[in-house]
Amino acid sequence: MENFFHTIFADASYPYEDSDIIIFGVPYDGTTSYKAGTRDSPDAIRSVSYNFETYLPRIDLDLSGLPVCDLGNLEIDCLPDLVIDQVERTVREIAGDGKFPLMIGGEHSVTVGAVRALSPECYIVCDAHLDLREEFGGSIYNHACVAKRVLDLGVGEVFIIGTRSGTFEEYGLVRSDSRISTYSPEDIAARGLDAVLDEIQEKTSGKRTYLSIDADAIDCCLTPGLGTPEPFGLRPEDIRAVVDRFGTVCCGFDYVEVCPIDNGQTAAVAAKIIRELIGLKNKK
Amino acid sequence: MENFFHTIFADASYPYEDSDIIIFGVPYDGTTSYKAGTRDSPDAIRSVSYNFETYLPRIDLDLSGLPVCDLGNLEIDCLPDLVIDQVERTVREIAGDGKFPLMIGGEHSVTVGAVRALSPECYIVCDAHLDLREEFGGSIYNHACVAKRVLDLGVGEVFIIGTRSGTFEEYGLVRSDSRISTYSPEDIAARGLDAVLDEIQEKTSGKRTYLSIDADAIDCCLTPGLGTPEPFGLRPEDIRAVVDRFGTVCCGFDYVEVCPIDNGQTAAVAAKIIRELIGLKNKK
Amino acid sequence: MENFFHTIFADASYPYEDSDIIIFGVPYDGTTSYKAGTRDSPDAIRSVSYNFETYLPRIDLDLSGLPVCDLGNLEIDCLPDLVIDQVERTVREIAGDGKFPLMIGGEHSVTVGAVRALSPECYIVCDAHLDLREEFGGSIYNHACVAKRVLDLGVGEVFIIGTRSGTFEEYGLVRSDSRISTYSPEDIAARGLDAVLDEIQEKTSGKRTYLSIDADAIDCCLTPGLGTPEPFGLRPEDIRAVVDRFGTVCCGFDYVEVCPIDNGQTAAVAAKIIRELIGLKNKK
Amino acid sequence: MENFFHTIFADASYPYEDSDIIIFGVPYDGTTSYKAGTRDSPDAIRSVSYNFETYLPRIDLDLSGLPVCDLGNLEIDCLPDLVIDQVERTVREIAGDGKFPLMIGGEHSVTVGAVRALSPECYIVCDAHLDLREEFGGSIYNHACVAKRVLDLGVGEVFIIGTRSGTFEEYGLVRSDSRISTYSPEDIAARGLDAVLDEIQEKTSGKRTYLSIDADAIDCCLTPGLGTPEPFGLRPEDIRAVVDRFGTVCCGFDYVEVCPIDNGQTAAVAAKIIRELIGLKNKK
Amino acid sequence: MENFFHTIFADASYPYEDSDIIIFGVPYDGTTSYKAGTRDSPDAIRSVSYNFETYLPRIDLDLSGLPVCDLGNLEIDCLPDLVIDQVERTVREIAGDGKFPLMIGGEHSVTVGAVRALSPECYIVCDAHLDLREEFGGSIYNHACVAKRVLDLGVGEVFIIGTRSGTFEEYGLVRSDSRISTYSPEDIAARGLDAVLDEIQEKTSGKRTYLSIDADAIDCCLTPGLGTPEPFGLRPEDIRAVVDRFGTVCCGFDYVEVCPIDNGQTAAVAAKIIRELIGLKNKK
Amino acid sequence: MENFFHTIFADASYPYEDSDIIIFGVPYDGTTSYKAGTRDSPDAIRSVSYNFETYLPRIDLDLSGLPVCDLGNLEIDCLPDLVIDQVERTVREIAGDGKFPLMIGGEHSVTVGAVRALSPECYIVCDAHLDLREEFGGSIYNHACVAKRVLDLGVGEVFIIGTRSGTFEEYGLVRSDSRISTYSPEDIAARGLDAVLDEIQEKTSGKRTYLSIDADAIDCCLTPGLGTPEPFGLRPEDIRAVVDRFGTVCCGFDYVEVCPIDNGQTAAVAAKIIRELIGLKNKK
Ligand SMILES: [Mn+2]
Ligand SMILES: [Mn+2]
Ligand SMILES: [Mn+2]
Ligand SMILES: [Mn+2]
Ligand SMILES: [Mn+2]
Ligand SMILES: [Mn+2]
Ligand SMILES: [Mn+2]
Ligand SMILES: [Mn+2]
Ligand SMILES: [Mn+2]
Ligand SMILES: [Mn+2]
Ligand SMILES: [Mn+2]
Ligand SMILES: [Mn+2]
Repeated sequence: MENFFHTIFADASYPYEDSDIIIFGVPYDGTTSYKAGTRDSPDAIRSVSYNFETYLPRIDLDLSGLPVCDLGNLEIDCLPDLVIDQVERTVREIAGDGKFPLMIGGEHSVTVGAVRALSPECYIVCDAHLDLREEFGGSIYNHACVAKRVLDLGVGEVFIIGTRSGTFEEYGLVRSDSRISTYSPEDIAARGLDAVLDEIQEKTSGKRTYLSIDADAIDCCLTPGLGTPEPFGLRPEDIRAVVDRFGTVCCGFDYVEVCPIDNGQTAAVAAKIIRELIGLKNKK
Repeated sequence: MENFFHTIFADASYPYEDSDIIIFGVPYDGTTSYKAGTRDSPDAIRSVSYNFETYLPRIDLDLSGLPVCDLGNLEIDCLPDLVIDQVERTVREIAGDGKFPLMIGGEHSVTVGAVRALSPECYIVCDAHLDLREEFGGSIYNHACVAKRVLDLGVGEVFIIGTRSGTFEEYGLVRSDSRISTYSPEDIAARGLDAVLDEIQEKTSGKRTYLSIDADAIDCCLTPGLGTPEPFGLRPEDIRAVVDRFGTVCCGFDYVEVCPIDNGQTAAVAAKIIRELIGLKNKK
Repeated sequence: MENFFHTIFADASYPYEDSDIIIFGVPYDGTTSYKAGTRDSPDAIRSVSYNFETYLPRIDLDLSGLPVCDLGNLEIDCLPDLVIDQVERTVREIAGDGKFPLMIGGEHSVTVGAVRALSPECYIVCDAHLDLREEFGGSIYNHACVAKRVLDLGVGEVFIIGTRSGTFEEYGLVRSDSRISTYSPEDIAARGLDAVLDEIQEKTSGKRTYLSIDADAIDCCLTPGLGTPEPFGLRPEDIRAVVDRFGTVCCGFDYVEVCPIDNGQTAAVAAKIIRELIGLKNKK
Repeated sequence: MENFFHTIFADASYPYEDSDIIIFGVPYDGTTSYKAGTRDSPDAIRSVSYNFETYLPRIDLDLSGLPVCDLGNLEIDCLPDLVIDQVERTVREIAGDGKFPLMIGGEHSVTVGAVRALSPECYIVCDAHLDLREEFGGSIYNHACVAKRVLDLGVGEVFIIGTRSGTFEEYGLVRSDSRISTYSPEDIAARGLDAVLDEIQEKTSGKRTYLSIDADAIDCCLTPGLGTPEPFGLRPEDIRAVVDRFGTVCCGFDYVEVCPIDNGQTAAVAAKIIRELIGLKNKK
Repeated sequence: MENFFHTIFADASYPYEDSDIIIFGVPYDGTTSYKAGTRDSPDAIRSVSYNFETYLPRIDLDLSGLPVCDLGNLEIDCLPDLVIDQVERTVREIAGDGKFPLMIGGEHSVTVGAVRALSPECYIVCDAHLDLREEFGGSIYNHACVAKRVLDLGVGEVFIIGTRSGTFEEYGLVRSDSRISTYSPEDIAARGLDAVLDEIQEKTSGKRTYLSIDADAIDCCLTPGLGTPEPFGLRPEDIRAVVDRFGTVCCGFDYVEVCPIDNGQTAAVAAKIIRELIGLKNKK
Repeated sequence: MENFFHTIFADASYPYEDSDIIIFGVPYDGTTSYKAGTRDSPDAIRSVSYNFETYLPRIDLDLSGLPVCDLGNLEIDCLPDLVIDQVERTVREIAGDGKFPLMIGGEHSVTVGAVRALSPECYIVCDAHLDLREEFGGSIYNHACVAKRVLDLGVGEVFIIGTRSGTFEEYGLVRSDSRISTYSPEDIAARGLDAVLDEIQEKTSGKRTYLSIDADAIDCCLTPGLGTPEPFGLRPEDIRAVVDRFGTVCCGFDYVEVCPIDNGQTAAVAAKIIRELIGLKNKK
């Protein structure tokens, strides 16, 4: 018969059993408060993933035929605690099967489920926001509380790259809690990203680390498809450098908070970085 | 000084204390599952309300200077039960002050709070959907459960106009529960809308009645700005006729589920119908 | 050489000198107050005119090769009185050359220039709005004052079809000034459009008549590409019937107030009606 | 494990071998000339299909668990003759396996492949356009030539419902070729759709018949998501009536020419009609 | 009662009498000629202002509760000279009350009213365009003439930062009129922005200075929401540096020419810079 | 009579016979596979060309009145080989008349026709993609094969600037075929663009050279209006530098692959670069 295709993430049609990397989407945006639409992110990122060649010249590797499986989207509930439970069960099963979980949000709160399942020692996140609130809008699982929840789960070190937004209380917590290290775009401009990544690499070396990319770490003038856009931010190249450095050593990964209401550029950056992460993990 | 204006609903700048009609918005869409954006509805409806003249030729009344107050939008929480509580407290206070609550959603679940506060005997709703699920997505306050919650609150009669979507179980409940009357677009085409409204008027006459307009009762080809669009529906003229009939006798009113992602026509219909309701209530 | 084409109105590339019908656009929207963008209407209508076949089955005529000339868009000034002067000079010259002026707006105020140049005895307009204000926003040439300006120019009879919006004062003028006849969508539904058009035809028979189509006469749920959208209006078929009746006998014609921010349907209706008008005038 | 889903047409996840109805998409729009984007139609229709309940009240049937399989989209070539070959091979195999082919375009030219594979005696199509050109733009497989190609394949009777656009030559062919019957929106308004469908049913009774829906048969003011939009057309209800009448007896079906650049209403109508066709075929 | 909010600029709800900074919007775009929509800028900037935290980490200050008042939008006339008069009266009153006027356009012409009211000695503007025309489109108050009008008002020094567009005549005036200093993006790249700002600071030190930001100074690839977009421009960081340097010493400020037809990034940059200006003025 | 204008490229209304530069558009996108809409590029670029002043300060030249002619858009066929033939005949005639052909795509495949007509010795292209496939989707004239076709036509040296996408086979061809030189964004960052351009200039000096700009060479975060967007690319300034260097010495030029679905910035960059090229060629 002719060739047909369903819109899964490109080149991720391997059977679950034989795959090393397991992709899944979580189309949840129930606690977001500014622009709606982050729920549409997984399918938008999958769609643009077909725009890219299977061969990655930067890594010199072809992605076709690699042991990668896209499960599709979780059939989610409508409350954040329930969705986080769904994510936790999913990631626990994937990790329990010895595979690498690669989650595509949805809003940032889904990260809490993955961290719960994986119990990392370190948490590296690119984010414009500190996400260190104790609760917001009546829920401790609001996407404004992710980093605080991660700390509460016993993660020993939290590194927030690209941060430039938070409350007075959140910045107070940054100053008072030695587990938290933050790197603003101004810090990174001053020190150089390589120096920052060296510092983080040294502190996380040998420790079980989770890596989360909140798309709004990038300047909203470059990637405006965001639920809570912030100008004066990082460049896509900076996120790529973070993933180059930590993508192959982390125990779990997610890319969240893309809100595909722009002309596709924000999802394109996400898809490209995810494809290069898949390449890097298979190149090793 | 020059004249300035803030974007409140047009001609609704009277002091709360002296107003008879109190407008407020609830920018909540946390349990919706298809298209995102219903949260933006109150401001979109307010914005287009300025496009219309203050004089209503059909009613022969000028809206400027009438005792109508727009409170603005509720600062909402992020969980449906909490938002419904906020709505309940708000409507209770408005009604307690002897004023008429006119709520602009947001998703349909907010209606539950208003019904809780007002304890009507009858509930008339225009809706493509039955909204009779017991729960959905892990919450009994999902917008797919509104009519069921209304029944649970002890409302004696529920009239659903324009319905054309529901599960097998929901349609079973319609058949088995004598409190529920439904009128599909095909029923209305066959019997004539006037006959249907006569029937409802007879059954609700003298009873405390709540009126809710779910914008998706209207055909999505005429008003595509909807979170859960359904074709083969009613016309805006039908909704106007329902409001003409029951708007002046009901104890509370809401217009919900507008999702302003179209070219403005769905919000324009909502704003016009709300303006005419205000006119009708002041004309009496 | 190969065939090339510039985006003029389709099949309107005849030399000015030899043409009977002269099309021109006026990309002006400087006095509009709600949605911006009517300036883009002439080019949008030209663009969609190529979507239609040159043959018109309803009229049994092929438009290719007919003596019709599209001059392009006026290089307009930025003040309404100046733009109206430009239109007046243009229409005066076209009519002075014995040709039929077919103007594409831009906002409705441009009609004043055409009426000034042509000095008709009767003015037939399809419009949701009365446009009978004495002045608005500091200018008597605001697009809310068109019909009043037309009356001031000495036009003896004004027929407003589809009207459903105006101030208390404007409706007062309708009642007090015997030169003005209005037909609301409700009137038309009650009497039938044919009866209304018969009445107007009788009153204008043998008199020099100008015909203006304000696109917002049509219901904004059917054609949402409008600067001042109004629901509860006419259907495109109604406008076509008006143009069928009066298009071939009028001394000048315009189609104004299309604001091409929708999915193209409002400009498509305009282009189709203009093409059929061209056909009708050439079929005679 | 949790439930996951990929975006196939809703409730069409049965294995191919055991299915009676086989859905597939053809994301091709290479010969279109006005608005681009019909290639995105299959995925847009699939996406909105999830917006609808699995239960169909009009048919009293639940679609979940029915033997229906969505193969996904054909991996298409870039030339019309090659794509038509791909469609032909696909439909031949589906029909050869005793299953019903339900194709989602893409542009109308793909219909030629299906007709070639099925060799029907009659061809019923809803279309604003005659599609009777011998060739267009250098190709006999342009989407403006579909009905002519169908005639060339030896189909004995062609019924074109909703037609209102064609060249002088195409209308000449309609008059001269007794195999072609056309029904314009004006014809249908005059005679009543039921009378028209009775006539077609009588002529096709007992004959192998193919049914094709070109989405532009519907008025572009109701469904503006079209590559070649035409106003003054049919209503979605008319298309539903055609599918109600002929959907269960035809040997093959397609829905083509949706161009999802609107607010989703055109795809919503398509998805709903396809779902009801599936229901009708399973209700028999 | 519950908390409600109207869409005024975030954290600008102090009473006028007690406020030091007075924000107001001027939704005027009547003389613009390319893309329409600048009229929607004040509300778009207000809307996105809620996306940002009240705490500003770069300034270490929380904006909530500061003496800042947003009056709302001027109810504007439709002719540029009248609107400029309205602005002049407004700014005169605000300044007369000893408060700082912070105006949000609308098109650039509104600046003329503010300058007339404040009679500064120096005028610093970020703009892609020279705006030095004597008149345009029949009006000396066209937005293409702002800097020329400012000179005519007797302002002694005009500094245009980011300029890269003008007529031959305008560039001639730059060369011949010693009151005008211009800094193109190429100049700034060559000399460094700090050196340029040092030069301007030296020349304006101790003099009454007005600061105007025309949003199109920024490269349209970074902020495409502009009425007259120009590529090859400045970065948002450059505008922030200008406001950091002169925002606290100027006697009046405006941010104009945002045309919110993009994905929100242009308004986001404007809102963020305005918020930081408010912070800086309160930090002193 | 008043001044009118048709939407040709700004300041390109000179008679063909007396013009040195001949602009034409090719609205073809029939072989594209990801985002549709490149067909609309020529008119979008023409439209924004009016946004820019006729005077170019960087070049100190006014474009008005220069001998430049915009023929309009080719009336194209629907198959790539036919369209390429049309382009070849057009360019052959233009070049045969001693004029410079300046083509606006449409998709990249149209370049093959121009190269066929001009038989250059060298081919310089800015492109994210190698375009070195032998065939794609059943056609050797797919836009993914342009550079390979150029090589097949006997062009001795191909320089691909900004490339970052290709198959394993295409990259293999780059390594094995000494006629091909590629410069990735990383190469350019490492070596400096000037050094790269020096190298190319040296190799092409004195040889007949064609220059093609595929808009996707630029990073899709800066110009998202692209049919096959790629992040991590060049800046508009880089393309300007390439055109500065080679625009005045090349024998033919095109700007292709703009897909105007963004907020206009991609077309704005194209129009500005084309205008500066026109200026540079007239400045000489
Ligand atoms: Mn976050
Ligand atoms: Mn964030
Ligand atoms: Mn509902
Ligand atoms: Mn509903
Ligand atoms: Mn009007
Ligand atoms: Mn009007
Ligand atoms: Mn067709
Ligand atoms: Mn068709
Ligand atoms: Mn300016
Ligand atoms: Mn400017
Ligand atoms: Mn290319
Ligand atoms: Mn390319």
